[in-house]
Amino acid sequence: MNPEDIRQLLEGVKKGKVPIDAAVERLKTLPFEDIGFATLDHHRSLRKGFPEVIWGEGKTSSQITMIIKKMLNKNYPVLVTRVDARKAACIKKSIPNITYHPLSRTLTSGKIPKTEKGTILVVSAGTSDIPVAEEALITATIMGNKVDHLYDVGVAGIHRLFEKKDKLLSASVLIVVAGMEGALPSVIGGLVDKPVIAVPTSIGYGTGFGGIAALLSMLNTCASGIAVVNIDNGFGAGYIASLINRV
Amino acid sequence: MNPEDIRQLLEGVKKGKVPIDAAVERLKTLPFEDIGFATLDHHRSLRKGFPEVIWGEGKTSSQITMIIKKMLNKNYPVLVTRVDARKAACIKKSIPNITYHPLSRTLTSGKIPKTEKGTILVVSAGTSDIPVAEEALITATIMGNKVDHLYDVGVAGIHRLFEKKDKLLSASVLIVVAGMEGALPSVIGGLVDKPVIAVPTSIGYGTGFGGIAALLSMLNTCASGIAVVNIDNGFGAGYIASLINRV
Amino acid sequence: MNPEDIRQLLEGVKKGKVPIDAAVERLKTLPFEDIGFATLDHHRSLRKGFPEVIWGEGKTSSQITMIIKKMLNKNYPVLVTRVDARKAACIKKSIPNITYHPLSRTLTSGKIPKTEKGTILVVSAGTSDIPVAEEALITATIMGNKVDHLYDVGVAGIHRLFEKKDKLLSASVLIVVAGMEGALPSVIGGLVDKPVIAVPTSIGYGTGFGGIAALLSMLNTCASGIAVVNIDNGFGAGYIASLINRV
Amino acid sequence: MNPEDIRQLLEGVKKGKVPIDAAVERLKTLPFEDIGFATLDHHRSLRKGFPEVIWGEGKTSSQITMIIKKMLNKNYPVLVTRVDARKAACIKKSIPNITYHPLSRTLTSGKIPKTEKGTILVVSAGTSDIPVAEEALITATIMGNKVDHLYDVGVAGIHRLFEKKDKLLSASVLIVVAGMEGALPSVIGGLVDKPVIAVPTSIGYGTGFGGIAALLSMLNTCASGIAVVNIDNGFGAGYIASLINRV
Amino acid sequence: MNPEDIRQLLEGVKKGKVPIDAAVERLKTLPFEDIGFATLDHHRSLRKGFPEVIWGEGKTSSQITMIIKKMLNKNYPVLVTRVDARKAACIKKSIPNITYHPLSRTLTSGKIPKTEKGTILVVSAGTSDIPVAEEALITATIMGNKVDHLYDVGVAGIHRLFEKKDKLLSASVLIVVAGMEGALPSVIGGLVDKPVIAVPTSIGYGTGFGGIAALLSMLNTCASGIAVVNIDNGFGAGYIASLINRV
Amino acid sequence: MNPEDIRQLLEGVKKGKVPIDAAVERLKTLPFEDIGFATLDHHRSLRKGFPEVIWGEGKTSSQITMIIKKMLNKNYPVLVTRVDARKAACIKKSIPNITYHPLSRTLTSGKIPKTEKGTILVVSAGTSDIPVAEEALITATIMGNKVDHLYDVGVAGIHRLFEKKDKLLSASVLIVVAGMEGALPSVIGGLVDKPVIAVPTSIGYGTGFGGIAALLSMLNTCASGIAVVNIDNGFGAGYIASLINRV
Amino acid sequence: MNPEDIRQLLEGVKKGKVPIDAAVERLKTLPFEDIGFATLDHHRSLRKGFPEVIWGEGKTSSQITMIIKKMLNKNYPVLVTRVDARKAACIKKSIPNITYHPLSRTLTSGKIPKTEKGTILVVSAGTSDIPVAEEALITATIMGNKVDHLYDVGVAGIHRLFEKKDKLLSASVLIVVAGMEGALPSVIGGLVDKPVIAVPTSIGYGTGFGGIAALLSMLNTCASGIAVVNIDNGFGAGYIASLINRV
Amino acid sequence: MNPEDIRQLLEGVKKGKVPIDAAVERLKTLPFEDIGFATLDHHRSLRKGFPEVIWGEGKTSSQITMIIKKMLNKNYPVLVTRVDARKAACIKKSIPNITYHPLSRTLTSGKIPKTEKGTILVVSAGTSDIPVAEEALITATIMGNKVDHLYDVGVAGIHRLFEKKDKLLSASVLIVVAGMEGALPSVIGGLVDKPVIAVPTSIGYGTGFGGIAALLSMLNTCASGIAVVNIDNGFGAGYIASLINRV
Repeated sequence: MNPEDIRQLLEGVKKGKVPIDAAVERLKTLPFEDIGFATLDHHRSLRKGFPEVIWGEGKTSSQITMIIKKMLNKNYPVLVTRVDARKAACIKKSIPNITYHPLSRTLTSGKIPKTEKGTILVVSAGTSDIPVAEEALITATIMGNKVDHLYDVGVAGIHRLFEKKDKLLSASVLIVVAGMEGALPSVIGGLVDKPVIAVPTSIGYGTGFGGIAALLSMLNTCASGIAVVNIDNGFGAGYIASLINRV
Repeated sequence: MNPEDIRQLLEGVKKGKVPIDAAVERLKTLPFEDIGFATLDHHRSLRKGFPEVIWGEGKTSSQITMIIKKMLNKNYPVLVTRVDARKAACIKKSIPNITYHPLSRTLTSGKIPKTEKGTILVVSAGTSDIPVAEEALITATIMGNKVDHLYDVGVAGIHRLFEKKDKLLSASVLIVVAGMEGALPSVIGGLVDKPVIAVPTSIGYGTGFGGIAALLSMLNTCASGIAVVNIDNGFGAGYIASLINRV
Repeated sequence: MNPEDIRQLLEGVKKGKVPIDAAVERLKTLPFEDIGFATLDHHRSLRKGFPEVIWGEGKTSSQITMIIKKMLNKNYPVLVTRVDARKAACIKKSIPNITYHPLSRTLTSGKIPKTEKGTILVVSAGTSDIPVAEEALITATIMGNKVDHLYDVGVAGIHRLFEKKDKLLSASVLIVVAGMEGALPSVIGGLVDKPVIAVPTSIGYGTGFGGIAALLSMLNTCASGIAVVNIDNGFGAGYIASLINRV
Repeated sequence: MNPEDIRQLLEGVKKGKVPIDAAVERLKTLPFEDIGFATLDHHRSLRKGFPEVIWGEGKTSSQITMIIKKMLNKNYPVLVTRVDARKAACIKKSIPNITYHPLSRTLTSGKIPKTEKGTILVVSAGTSDIPVAEEALITATIMGNKVDHLYDVGVAGIHRLFEKKDKLLSASVLIVVAGMEGALPSVIGGLVDKPVIAVPTSIGYGTGFGGIAALLSMLNTCASGIAVVNIDNGFGAGYIASLINRV
Repeated sequence: MNPEDIRQLLEGVKKGKVPIDAAVERLKTLPFEDIGFATLDHHRSLRKGFPEVIWGEGKTSSQITMIIKKMLNKNYPVLVTRVDARKAACIKKSIPNITYHPLSRTLTSGKIPKTEKGTILVVSAGTSDIPVAEEALITATIMGNKVDHLYDVGVAGIHRLFEKKDKLLSASVLIVVAGMEGALPSVIGGLVDKPVIAVPTSIGYGTGFGGIAALLSMLNTCASGIAVVNIDNGFGAGYIASLINRV
Repeated sequence: MNPEDIRQLLEGVKKGKVPIDAAVERLKTLPFEDIGFATLDHHRSLRKGFPEVIWGEGKTSSQITMIIKKMLNKNYPVLVTRVDARKAACIKKSIPNITYHPLSRTLTSGKIPKTEKGTILVVSAGTSDIPVAEEALITATIMGNKVDHLYDVGVAGIHRLFEKKDKLLSASVLIVVAGMEGALPSVIGGLVDKPVIAVPTSIGYGTGFGGIAALLSMLNTCASGIAVVNIDNGFGAGYIASLINRV
Repeated sequence: MNPEDIRQLLEGVKKGKVPIDAAVERLKTLPFEDIGFATLDHHRSLRKGFPEVIWGEGKTSSQITMIIKKMLNKNYPVLVTRVDARKAACIKKSIPNITYHPLSRTLTSGKIPKTEKGTILVVSAGTSDIPVAEEALITATIMGNKVDHLYDVGVAGIHRLFEKKDKLLSASVLIVVAGMEGALPSVIGGLVDKPVIAVPTSIGYGTGFGGIAALLSMLNTCASGIAVVNIDNGFGAGYIASLINRV
Repeated sequence: MNPEDIRQLLEGVKKGKVPIDAAVERLKTLPFEDIGFATLDHHRSLRKGFPEVIWGEGKTSSQITMIIKKMLNKNYPVLVTRVDARKAACIKKSIPNITYHPLSRTLTSGKIPKTEKGTILVVSAGTSDIPVAEEALITATIMGNKVDHLYDVGVAGIHRLFEKKDKLLSASVLIVVAGMEGALPSVIGGLVDKPVIAVPTSIGYGTGFGGIAALLSMLNTCASGIAVVNIDNGFGAGYIASLINRV
């Protein structure tokens, strides 16, 4: 409700077309409607193809089914993360058209208009990092981006990375997923001049501390142009990469 | 040096126009020139107005002076971070045209072509966070961005933030700087639909652990669209925000 | 036993009404009776409607049943925390009148006199924080308080919080429960001028460290009027909020 | 601005007494005025005698002087924390009527209406904890509370504590300040039935970790009715204790 | 083998009574026999009634059975720690005379000569700490000490402790076992003038960090005369208390 | 005041020899006198030659001087720890008879009756650990023990330790002081059958974490008969070793 | 591809023997072939008997079977780590000639040429450390080394170690595996003048922190000539020891 | 003293050539001489050119001077680490022939026989890591190795590293020194097939935690053939690299 809307309402009051009680009622909620700008905007985003994301962990398959159905009724695209195969099978019995992506353990559904922006490239250091990488990839896909990926190109065999320089150089945004020592984003950040979103994974053992070693590596990178999301947070990386790709 | 270049060189060799020794010399360094694609690209960036950044901490004023002079000779823009007032005064004796920004403790110099892209908005939670915020602001400025700022709008008096909704909503990229509990990026991330780069600061005491509390807060945000850089790393935030603004 | 009591005992001794042996016996335990002031006072509290709380975790259902029965015999109100549904069913077989609250995983029983004091408002950031919030709510309820709640109003969609400003402003004491980045108490602490008890929850993953991130956030709040209890300690928050509401 | 205010404004518009432009202007800022409820309420608190608190650390004496003068002009009570003796002397040259409390390193000024509520008792474990205890005491005093204290009654000589049971039992709210192993709040929490605000201090060495040992002790207390503030945060404890004493 | 022994051996060589080969053989192992003083002494201890202790965790019941049998053959007393009820039942099938202590999860067997030294008193803060306390008690018992115990006398109800002052004051060595905030050793250390061995337990949740909070509390005690063993190390406490009781 | 004392007092009252007011006054303080048993006992200890210990760090030389004088007036032995040479010189101007021990940075004074008990042996791993070792030695000395020491016998050159086996084996109690990896107590604990008090020191760098590495080493020792005090807590080790030597 | 190769290729082009297209193709991949020097070298190593190592944890038995078969086809030696007995049995059904080592939980296969270099000695502190020690031993064996071992010679009974001085002194490289306090590498490092690779294990409890205590001990060793690998990383130790043995 | 020596001594005794007293004296110290095998061997090493290393930090210049003189008298080579320029100047006044290396802050003196073994290559990631790298280099040099270095080749500009592949591939042992994210050893470990000793440095800020981030990176490396020494421990790296180079 912008100033022009308010002016028209007031003119309606002045001219007697709008009863005072109705105008009071309308204006009384103004603060929250207006504060709700983010929300409205967010809803607008949703209509433009952004998913309402459901965190599947800790929810039963029937709870998830119920939420998905409510969203599908409104024609929203759907993204459910952290769903294991057993739950997914359960949910698909009620909602057969939904797609399960076993690698990323996600469920997706709904129409997503493609944009003609640049490509988001998802890179992973090891094969064990792929589930998190795929969560980022699926998120970026459902948010309407062109995506590509480059897996198992960790720093211990760095020639594998260099063989793919074209992919690296042609991406608009890069998501780099790595566990263990988490060095890959630093190397890639030194090669490209695009924003790199680094995702530490909980892959490793001993002093890997469930991803802390990789996280610290990424925060302390000597390369410029890198920012970090939480451990294993593939969705978060895919989401901010999509926002960046729309800037 | 792309395949076409190689082909022309080889044809030069075949036709006797290029002596074999010269071609060997040219090709011998091919790997590193080519691997150096990032470097060349980086150099190109520099010529487009990106600064060669000098970390001033732990360097003497004469060391800094020497590096700056070398860069100015090549007409590079210059950004020196973490320079205290005393060192800056020393350096200005030898290089009077350089500008010292006391709030961000940075030195800058050189011509920077402005771009006509969106605005990078730097937000800080408290007044004590301003030095880090200013380092981000100066970095984004010298990298050719339109910038704006919004300081002292922490979550403990959240109405101060809401009064500035226009600034928040019109930015292309947001840098949000906060110490103590580091909650501001989460609140802003819930209001806008643009990428937010969060910068924890070492401001606080006791269990703030020199910025760890703020860092953890930002990594664990319940809002989407947020990525994090290292504690007090204003420069890093300004740099990736600039890369994002160019996407 | 105050000085007047001692004087009367001594006069009884002097007058020969109290045999010396009886007086010695009476005085011999004086220190501990007296040190026991807290205990007596505590017992008084219990008679005024405060529960003897039983920590259910690590106890078998038959152990819990035995303790409850002993307390019910004395007409004490009963609160058992951390009881899963299976144990609760077991216990209800022996004690059918006890009530199980599945959300908070608590068992309660007994008559609790209501007070006419202010309202304790329990606020939770996410739906996953509700079990801890409910433990606080049940505790405050059985301790004789008016209670209300406001769930799922986290900082990432802060308009949901503002729509409920009446509830926030009319509470006497607020319990604010949040996991992940734990920012909600800071925002609420900036809005109200009543004491806020913050409860970090172990909800989250990666660098949430089982609630440490939220705990640090709350300890380092930039808002005034906030104190913190242990991670997931809904009972502790409900208990101190009740003490505060009786001040 | 409540619904009745809006109705009157609209009637003014309808009757032509209020020009539409003026009404638009008035209504346009409505959201933020209204969101600002907390602020207004906060300001009201200030007028009722609550200090605007200034964190003195990291500010120069001239900066502090400037802020104090601005506050004194509005007749606000003033509390400045973390001011060393040298700075205080400097400030007193410009503002002679301000009082410096060397133990708590605070400056205070202004009239504070006393309330007739219960007493806030500040207890400290060791003599080294007194500066933090005094910061709490001064804060509670300037916020209009009756205060009392009990210093150097740590658990290693627990009879010193028991000799003062009257003070302990007659307080409305207790602030318990302890470094090292931080056990005192647990002992006191077991003796009284009033809310206890525990303040860990950075006193100690080795594995005290600058107050972490005491903080963990307090968070993990086996006593009920205890909540904790940040390490060395005497001000925070005094503030929430004051809010509690007003409930 | 002292110098006198060597001299006699040499004289035997000189006089031809000891063949050179035999003397070489005897002297060749001298270093290790001598270094082995600890071992011999250790064996002596064993013969005096000290158990060879077996850490049961991670060993199968048949492995444990085999080791016990080997020790029983040599008439050694036996102590096996960390044995669950199922394993114990298994072992008792082969070795019926061994005793299982379910509270401490230990197995014991063999003759132990009693000493007429002072009493080792084992104190525990909560009922959940009893398993660790019992491990200490059983260890001290099998090592030939008079033992006594005092359970569930935590600091939150400190009068329970004071009622037992006679036990506290008459012990020669005290083992104090506590989880959560671990404050009990500090209080007891302030009451008695005997050595106190403090044992933190992993009892608690959230920021108890599996016993770290209690450990730090005990290391940072403001009382004198306290030393600490590892978390849940009841055996270690019982062992050193026994050494102390023999001094 | 034991039951017999009470009986006599009561008989005095009965016979009219003791006025009731006087008896009330006497009995009123009974709890605290009695609770004070530890205190009285502690005072008795002091008269038997135990020092009242003063922690010198953070106290001015005039504050320390004042406390010492008060103690000397009562003929107490005096031990002041953590006093640097400058402060000590200052104090000696007022109290010339006090002795300063520069290695341990302690001041001692007063008569101490020697006991004929066993020897306390203080062992240190490196030369840098000697100040902490000396603090333990001085403490044990002033508390009336025979003491001996063995310095610079760390595990990296373990033959230095074995050359002194007689000292190791003849001690009643051992205090073992070590920084860096803190392995020495484990080795010694495997050689002797007497209680070992381990003292980690903050000597080392990098991941020594100011003594944490040594502390963890000592807590996790595979040897039996070892307990640990706080980092650099030479006094605490000397104190408990003295209590042990008196058992 | 060295300069001489390039020269010959160019001469081929000049003389018309090499078509330009073929030369372009050849030179286009030059950078990566050349960067690939490590890879080629690595492959060469493999052919010389170095295993391609497969991390078995988190892989299904059919995945592992597939990878092994592919490697056996190329006649590579095979090493699979972290394979439990159940998986191993499964794999052996398809590949009967592979050997399962239950202690180290490894599978090995293939011909390995022995070298005539020095011996790698694997030492373990406790019996619980043997699985990690065996992983190191198997790795060093399959990489063509002479190996020997010395188990259960922890510092708490150090004479067991000294009895084996010949083994210690005759090794070329030592791998020392220890959990708990991790002191064994320091003692051995002080005895030998050969490189020692220290492996912390996750054996222990409480403050062992899953191997952190042992790791810190080893990093902070006062002995020279010691370097450390990750917790439980037997393979890593065996691998670098093999590289050292080939120097 | 081997069995043959003993036999000869005994025969001397038998034949009366060696008096019994002299033989007793000789044999009495046998254990320690023999245990001292490490020591003797160590002394032998010293005579072969290995330095007796002096840790200069925390020692006064006169203390260092005294130790150096004692060593020079025995013609030992000398290495003093952690000596600042001021101390060094002081020491050189008394011992003019000693050499100060300002970059590594070391003093060296004495004759060192060169070996004809392979080269130790010291690599550093950044210019700030050079002091630690130089400490390693100086150590390896004085221990008689051929050394080379490669500085400022961090992963953010990885082409700088590749340009030096010849140096990398021709080294026998590599020492890789890196702060910040510590990724360089992983990259180099993937390129070479020689042992890599990784040295984390305390270079960096914020979450670098004084070298912890780099240390964790190195421990969790995905490359094989890497072991790690303590933070900033250039000497330790140089020492073990020298032992490796002698294998």
